[in-house]
Amino acid sequence: MEARRPRIALKASLTNTAAKTARARPDASEGLIRGRFARARLPEVEAFTASLPFDRRLYRHDIRGSIAHARMLARTGLVRRAEAAKIVAGLRAVEREIDSGRFRFELADEDIHLAIERRLTERIGLDTVMPGYTHLQRAQPITLAHHLAAYVEMLSRDRERFAQALERTAVMPLGAGALAGTTLPIDREAVARELGFRRISENSLDAVSDRDFVVDFLAAAALSAVHLSRMAEEIILWSTAEFGFVALPDEFSTGSSMMPHKKNPDLLELIRGKSGRVIGDLVAMLTVLKGLPLAYNSDLQEDKERTFDALDTLKPALRLLTLLWPRLRFNAAAMRSAAGGFALATDLAEYLVRHGVAFRRAHEIVGNLVREASAAGRSLEDFTLADLRRHSTAFGRDALRGLSAEGSVRARNLRGGPAAAAMRRYLRRLERR
Amino acid sequence: MEARRPRIALKASLTNTAAKTARARPDASEGLIRGRFARARLPEVEAFTASLPFDRRLYRHDIRGSIAHARMLARTGLVRRAEAAKIVAGLRAVEREIDSGRFRFELADEDIHLAIERRLTERIGLDTVMPGYTHLQRAQPITLAHHLAAYVEMLSRDRERFAQALERTAVMPLGAGALAGTTLPIDREAVARELGFRRISENSLDAVSDRDFVVDFLAAAALSAVHLSRMAEEIILWSTAEFGFVALPDEFSTGSSMMPHKKNPDLLELIRGKSGRVIGDLVAMLTVLKGLPLAYNSDLQEDKERTFDALDTLKPALRLLTLLWPRLRFNAAAMRSAAGGFALATDLAEYLVRHGVAFRRAHEIVGNLVREASAAGRSLEDFTLADLRRHSTAFGRDALRGLSAEGSVRARNLRGGPAAAAMRRYLRRLERR
Amino acid sequence: MEARRPRIALKASLTNTAAKTARARPDASEGLIRGRFARARLPEVEAFTASLPFDRRLYRHDIRGSIAHARMLARTGLVRRAEAAKIVAGLRAVEREIDSGRFRFELADEDIHLAIERRLTERIGLDTVMPGYTHLQRAQPITLAHHLAAYVEMLSRDRERFAQALERTAVMPLGAGALAGTTLPIDREAVARELGFRRISENSLDAVSDRDFVVDFLAAAALSAVHLSRMAEEIILWSTAEFGFVALPDEFSTGSSMMPHKKNPDLLELIRGKSGRVIGDLVAMLTVLKGLPLAYNSDLQEDKERTFDALDTLKPALRLLTLLWPRLRFNAAAMRSAAGGFALATDLAEYLVRHGVAFRRAHEIVGNLVREASAAGRSLEDFTLADLRRHSTAFGRDALRGLSAEGSVRARNLRGGPAAAAMRRYLRRLERR
Amino acid sequence: MEARRPRIALKASLTNTAAKTARARPDASEGLIRGRFARARLPEVEAFTASLPFDRRLYRHDIRGSIAHARMLARTGLVRRAEAAKIVAGLRAVEREIDSGRFRFELADEDIHLAIERRLTERIGLDTVMPGYTHLQRAQPITLAHHLAAYVEMLSRDRERFAQALERTAVMPLGAGALAGTTLPIDREAVARELGFRRISENSLDAVSDRDFVVDFLAAAALSAVHLSRMAEEIILWSTAEFGFVALPDEFSTGSSMMPHKKNPDLLELIRGKSGRVIGDLVAMLTVLKGLPLAYNSDLQEDKERTFDALDTLKPALRLLTLLWPRLRFNAAAMRSAAGGFALATDLAEYLVRHGVAFRRAHEIVGNLVREASAAGRSLEDFTLADLRRHSTAFGRDALRGLSAEGSVRARNLRGGPAAAAMRRYLRRLERR
Repeated sequence: MEARRPRIALKASLTNTAAKTARARPDASEGLIRGRFARARLPEVEAFTASLPFDRRLYRHDIRGSIAHARMLARTGLVRRAEAAKIVAGLRAVEREIDSGRFRFELADEDIHLAIERRLTERIGLDTVMPGYTHLQRAQPITLAHHLAAYVEMLSRDRERFAQALERTAVMPLGAGALAGTTLPIDREAVARELGFRRISENSLDAVSDRDFVVDFLAAAALSAVHLSRMAEEIILWSTAEFGFVALPDEFSTGSSMMPHKKNPDLLELIRGKSGRVIGDLVAMLTVLKGLPLAYNSDLQEDKERTFDALDTLKPALRLLTLLWPRLRFNAAAMRSAAGGFALATDLAEYLVRHGVAFRRAHEIVGNLVREASAAGRSLEDFTLADLRRHSTAFGRDALRGLSAEGSVRARNLRGGPAAAAMRRYLRRLERR
Repeated sequence: MEARRPRIALKASLTNTAAKTARARPDASEGLIRGRFARARLPEVEAFTASLPFDRRLYRHDIRGSIAHARMLARTGLVRRAEAAKIVAGLRAVEREIDSGRFRFELADEDIHLAIERRLTERIGLDTVMPGYTHLQRAQPITLAHHLAAYVEMLSRDRERFAQALERTAVMPLGAGALAGTTLPIDREAVARELGFRRISENSLDAVSDRDFVVDFLAAAALSAVHLSRMAEEIILWSTAEFGFVALPDEFSTGSSMMPHKKNPDLLELIRGKSGRVIGDLVAMLTVLKGLPLAYNSDLQEDKERTFDALDTLKPALRLLTLLWPRLRFNAAAMRSAAGGFALATDLAEYLVRHGVAFRRAHEIVGNLVREASAAGRSLEDFTLADLRRHSTAFGRDALRGLSAEGSVRARNLRGGPAAAAMRRYLRRLERR
Repeated sequence: MEARRPRIALKASLTNTAAKTARARPDASEGLIRGRFARARLPEVEAFTASLPFDRRLYRHDIRGSIAHARMLARTGLVRRAEAAKIVAGLRAVEREIDSGRFRFELADEDIHLAIERRLTERIGLDTVMPGYTHLQRAQPITLAHHLAAYVEMLSRDRERFAQALERTAVMPLGAGALAGTTLPIDREAVARELGFRRISENSLDAVSDRDFVVDFLAAAALSAVHLSRMAEEIILWSTAEFGFVALPDEFSTGSSMMPHKKNPDLLELIRGKSGRVIGDLVAMLTVLKGLPLAYNSDLQEDKERTFDALDTLKPALRLLTLLWPRLRFNAAAMRSAAGGFALATDLAEYLVRHGVAFRRAHEIVGNLVREASAAGRSLEDFTLADLRRHSTAFGRDALRGLSAEGSVRARNLRGGPAAAAMRRYLRRLERR
Repeated sequence: MEARRPRIALKASLTNTAAKTARARPDASEGLIRGRFARARLPEVEAFTASLPFDRRLYRHDIRGSIAHARMLARTGLVRRAEAAKIVAGLRAVEREIDSGRFRFELADEDIHLAIERRLTERIGLDTVMPGYTHLQRAQPITLAHHLAAYVEMLSRDRERFAQALERTAVMPLGAGALAGTTLPIDREAVARELGFRRISENSLDAVSDRDFVVDFLAAAALSAVHLSRMAEEIILWSTAEFGFVALPDEFSTGSSMMPHKKNPDLLELIRGKSGRVIGDLVAMLTVLKGLPLAYNSDLQEDKERTFDALDTLKPALRLLTLLWPRLRFNAAAMRSAAGGFALATDLAEYLVRHGVAFRRAHEIVGNLVREASAAGRSLEDFTLADLRRHSTAFGRDALRGLSAEGSVRARNLRGGPAAAAMRRYLRRLERR
């Protein structure tokens, strides 16, 4: 996201500048627009319409845009070169001043990706067999590496979505004036080159009233937050006494001021809950835009607040999960012990299919086996060949061979499957992406 | 809302206290929960899970709750009286200190109600006939007072909703402990009486995991914000060059830094747009709660942030509209001139119905009249009796009498209608509410 | 909800009628509005703007409203008595005809309330001790009855919200005309009495443009759906192999066409997931209303579709949970065995407080005990008095007495607590509500 | 969207199939899974969990997927060739049968694009000068073509978003089994080629639990619906008596059953309002996904209902606007007359800048001119050179030349500006896209 942030901020800053040309405080002391107005705005109005606290976050981008603008005006002769140089110097001084008082925290969203990939690589061996769940009921054995790869895929799509949102953001609106361009001979392409925009906007009305790029970002952020909520939910489940698959490190947990024995995963709960907030930001922005006539309207001022709120929610969540993943201690024994038993039923049915039994019939035979085992309090792994053959003579000597969580995983070696061999091929493709 | 705010804040504070008993920072230097944990939480975890900035807003309510609690503990003998007195004195000192550095701004939501009622009372005469619109097309003449009364009705329902949300808020959770009550002999009723709660919660699990009262508030706030967005939309429309019904005062308008002639209603646009934000807050809270098992989970920590965000959006919007209404200058002439013409067609049709013509036939006759007038570039008011009688002999001498915007308004004197007499009866009922 | 449904439908039907007066198809063959229009609407326009499929659901209410209207017109003399009688007879014939082809399914939302209350009453004894959770970590022992009572409280608030929404629904809009009332001498109070409305609307503009009552219903429905999602989530968790607290009846479960051993709680998953849909309905309606000028606009036509969608989602969910609750088989042994151990830590700390130790110190002592037990692989219940006294001499002979899940529950006998005695007092209050 | 729909439907159908392997009705009469279950599901459960009405829409895609699957199984030897041929023939017969009873309506979303581009091309001359608005206040003269081009840009971005959503949809999940792949030797690549998928999924857990592609589609649909709502809002405004810029064709309008003179833009109001519904669909899906553990859960069954609801809302809206655009009759005279006057103030200020006056000073001079003109009831166009020079001697003989709406538009000839020349260059670029 590092490359992306400045671009979003720069576009927001310039779109904002366009907006400001359509709106200015009439009470500015220096007669700028005194002419039109007899009276100054109320302080309450001033406070409500101020976007200062949010604009302040854009100072670098504001300044960078202004410098490029001043230079272009000098080149076109609208401003004298000496004057432009003075303006640029002044802007740089302002930037240094603000810089000195600020802490910067940049996000690399690859981090979480990498953190999970690393654990996946460590866990590619068969010591980490675990149950795969559907409907939160144990379904079939998989491996922890296989499960982690599902997260890698989700996060890859998130990254792609952010990149596509960026493409629609890297379109320079400058030159749109208040809504209708300008009669002054400005050079839009030159400014765009200097600021690193990929394209310039094709319509000045659209340039000042479009907030698609904000919605694109918020939609990507909402889905990303939802992905993190799913990941958080699973770690919360795995860290319950009942599952016992993972132990949270102390430095990511919280105790209770009343109950001396508690150790709570509240960081993960917050990450899960805050997805609601980012969804709320997306809803807010879509609702703001609904039914709004062209071109600029001050309703659009909400754009930056929603963007920053989503970013400030998502960024630390990503950062903290990046720090958490390498510290999670998995309980391989607990996972393994939950992965066997009836979760092998499908393997038995597929054995029968490979030996010529129609799937429907195979399903029925194994269903009966499960019912019998369940009633007798036995596991499928306890069955002898004779037990199996009582239900179907299609069961041969090799039916019990490989009837284990490990065998089950090893046999599902197709692309996308959990076998270690399939996972290794996946990792190689991942490196080439 | 004055009475209501403290109650919401107090409930939030106490529910929060319950929550805190279920969660405490294990790195607290004073061994409180050192026992359970080997390592302190990361600073990043600390920052993400902190609710301090929001809790700080609750200090008065926190302190008030703590004082009541200390007194009750003293009465039950769990804390010695002298000790309790010291605690209370200490809490009061803290409160005074925080108080001294704070600006307080309390909202009276009756204000906007009153502001509109006052304008309504001023405008009850017939000088303010205006067109009523459906589908944004001129429909029938009404009066400005009648239009304002529609807002009064909306705002009345908002008030009722906030009051009902308050009823479900004024239920004291204290005594729920972390989730399961306590074995200590506390006196819940006494604390509730002291703090002014109307009831005490009936189930400790529910008390710590319920955030209905937050959703109640947010749902009322979202609908109220939507009402303000509708009001803002209308004033924006009325202040366009095209409608020209109202002039915004300078102190509520903004100029343009590029276009010297502009005068923009950006305050109203912000009020319209920010309804999206409050809807977003409601969505966020509902999403946070969805699928959450009992009892307390840290996801719930979002409750205060959404509540305060909605409140901080809605309060200044209400305040500013309260200041704006008395300053709006209506252009009665422009309104009057838009209120006549074809908008009288329905009166003609109703005339025919009163004179025995079936409504379906009356509608058709007047439809033909409108088409003829429209083709000839004439208004209905220009028609002579002969013109009318060419379409239907049911038109008598009195058909043209009262065929004016004023006459039309006067004739709709039923309860809920625009006639000045009906409006005066409405105002009397309003006073008795 | 039985009393409530017809009222919502009736209001929707009448508000709709008001809307229809503001909008009619110009292509109606019987010249009704031919006059104004040269050309008929396109079939595509017709289809898109049709609200027939939704209006059809309102036929009883439409007919009931029309009968009351016709009678009132007869009384005021606007329609002759014989004619009115014919109209009424005709409307009744239409109703009988539609009735004959319809299946009716009325919801009693008390059912789920009652179903849970009944289980609660059965389970009031101490055989159903279970762990209470916070952060999905075992916190303190409670009982199943206590947990069920939390649901009863949630559902009670839902019922109250629906009742309050009904109050704002039972306000008759009839008489508002298209937006501005009528010049015809109608009797609004008489119609309201006949139709069972509690009040009549006070402003005709407001009457045709207000959809607050729809938002009120949808907000109540969304919160109710969220409550059901929380209940569903818990039963899903409890029915996992890992928790094993409850067995779903076969007739509420689903197997897998691939995995012969599966038994899935998909009914509960759907109930959990569909809360998203009802939240979506609420968002849709708020967004429709945002920024809409008065009076009627066709955007409002979405009101019935969202209302019915929410109702059709919520009703069967309530019904199915009502059927499910009596059929759930709880595994008391599994619940009991999860309820002891460290979950008793808080009781030990409270013992020390009752014996004069400050809470902060008591918390630390028990924290150390937990850490020691945890390291030694022991449970708190295995400790001897000597073990305890090594940590604090405040532990007396009675410290171990009652140190069990059952004892812990029994001791929390305050209002809102889990003790059987407290629950019995709660049930008596519940009966009197 | 034509190419896209089948792909979305096909992915939905296959993802659904994966889901179905994780869930099957235990009461299927043909013993399929009788083994595991003692009792059949309740009819109420059956009805609630049924996705049939929605699955039915996928029949072509279901059948196409099944044919490819059967062929692949034949190639791998898991099914005999003769048997596979019989299965394929049977599936084709079923398809023909369903086909015969169905009406098909395919959407080409380029239509609306083209319809607007065509009007834009017709209107490129200067006869269609109109006011550009910011804050709904007249800002500067533009042309209708320029305004239409803003819509073209919006719709282009929508198309791009749908195409990107499609890319993430065209990934084949088949082979994921219930969640963990299969031990049977299937050929995923072959099926993907036959069905036209571009890639196959890389992780079986992800494949059955991912609904990103649904959210991608819904987010694109919500933003597209919001764009249509903005377009609808503008046409509604333009067709008011107050603006009078456009006349709606009769076949797209509605009369009133009460008011004989009305002609309402209700089609456009519905399009504006229904954006709320699509936003609601997006919110619903994000909320469904929030906090859901892997892999398949029945909550996901909501995916198709939300997708179809959004599609069924958006498609006819796009279709109807496509039909509407060529039929709109613009009132060029009314537009032109609103475009002059004070809207030329910015041109005067820019004249001064081109003649060496600093912008701040130029803004002030023209502000004073506007105030003077406004007080005197004059328009800027009425000013003489002497009038101008009284305010600034920088005004030369050419200051009044080109001081007209047409001149103003012609002078803003930069890329993105309204000048006819700039618009022609834009159209050429558009053709090459």
